[in-house]
Amino acid sequence: MRRREDRANHIYRVAAQIMCRKGYEATSMNDIGAAVGLTKPGLYHYLRGKEDLLFRIMSYGMDVVDDLVIAPAKPIADAEQRLRTMIDRHVNRIMEEGGEVTIILEEMWALKPSHREIIRLRKRAYFDLLRRTLLQLDGEGKLNKVNATVAAFSLLGMINWISRWHVRGGKLKPSDVADNMLEVALHGLLRGKTAAKKSR
Amino acid sequence: MRRREDRANHIYRVAAQIMCRKGYEATSMNDIGAAVGLTKPGLYHYLRGKEDLLFRIMSYGMDVVDDLVIAPAKPIADAEQRLRTMIDRHVNRIMEEGGEVTIILEEMWALKPSHREIIRLRKRAYFDLLRRTLLQLDGEGKLNKVNATVAAFSLLGMINWISRWHVRGGKLKPSDVADNMLEVALHGLLRGKTAAKKSR
Repeated sequence: MRRREDRANHIYRVAAQIMCRKGYEATSMNDIGAAVGLTKPGLYHYLRGKEDLLFRIMSYGMDVVDDLVIAPAKPIADAEQRLRTMIDRHVNRIMEEGGEVTIILEEMWALKPSHREIIRLRKRAYFDLLRRTLLQLDGEGKLNKVNATVAAFSLLGMINWISRWHVRGGKLKPSDVADNMLEVALHGLLRGKTAAKKSR
Repeated sequence: MRRREDRANHIYRVAAQIMCRKGYEATSMNDIGAAVGLTKPGLYHYLRGKEDLLFRIMSYGMDVVDDLVIAPAKPIADAEQRLRTMIDRHVNRIMEEGGEVTIILEEMWALKPSHREIIRLRKRAYFDLLRRTLLQLDGEGKLNKVNATVAAFSLLGMINWISRWHVRGGKLKPSDVADNMLEVALHGLLRGKTAAKKSR
């Protein structure tokens, strides 16, 4: 069971890479089969078709966020610590995973409406946790004088954008990116920050 | 001459909207012709084909950035004022324009290599101006203790991301978004900021 899941997740990551390079429409099931060493019938053992594959890649991306960002952050009572945990974990996740799944998560136009609504609500749940955390900080007098919605989207933008520029194995190590982005984000959001202490 | 240019820019904006909704590959020249009231031959009076159209949309987007963000910012000697001007103008431009052209600027995979290189270099020139501005601030002791590359990409991320979430005519007015994002960005980047004064 575990093995089948690993195999499926591998297919999603490879498919996301191909789609980023060739575009969703131009990517064929044959391209993906060839890249993961499966015949078309072998691939259809895992998948119903290309839209189904796209939906599963996005669901996989949101599962990663749920399991490795939201689940560990949600029980943290202290809002500042929760915010640090979310930023640090999300940033590191994108860099370990490579950014392709994050980029594919923007291809909402290619989903059928029922699938699009499911992904939209999952993204929304993440945004809401972020925004509630900022509102809690505001209530505690710790938030800069900023609108929580604009602040939450600003944070999501800087984090998601990593997938567009960070080169794995390049000059900037993941820990450099994570520490510096945490610094920019916490100074940008929190009142009177002078140094962003590490949370890991 | 002026009129022909306006007409062309209108085609680019409408085409970007359709491509964001349907995807680049699934968008046909007929779709675009129908939306702007031109027959296919009429459209080919302006354009050589779909890849040419994509390249022109991106070039138009970069022209807007060049003319309305870079050109007014570049001659400003004071680095902090230059940074404020760049953020404020870029943010407002995306909201006035609607975000579709910004989103299409990410579809680099669909360009032919020679076109891709041209757009890549134009984006790079913008990034370099931003990064140099941050390094100048660092030299003046005004930058937070952050890596200028990570800081510049963080800023670009929060600005470009507006195109993914801001709804024209929605609850958040463009001036609210611009003022709040300037606040987050300046606190995040500059040492000892306590309030972001407006620059417009």
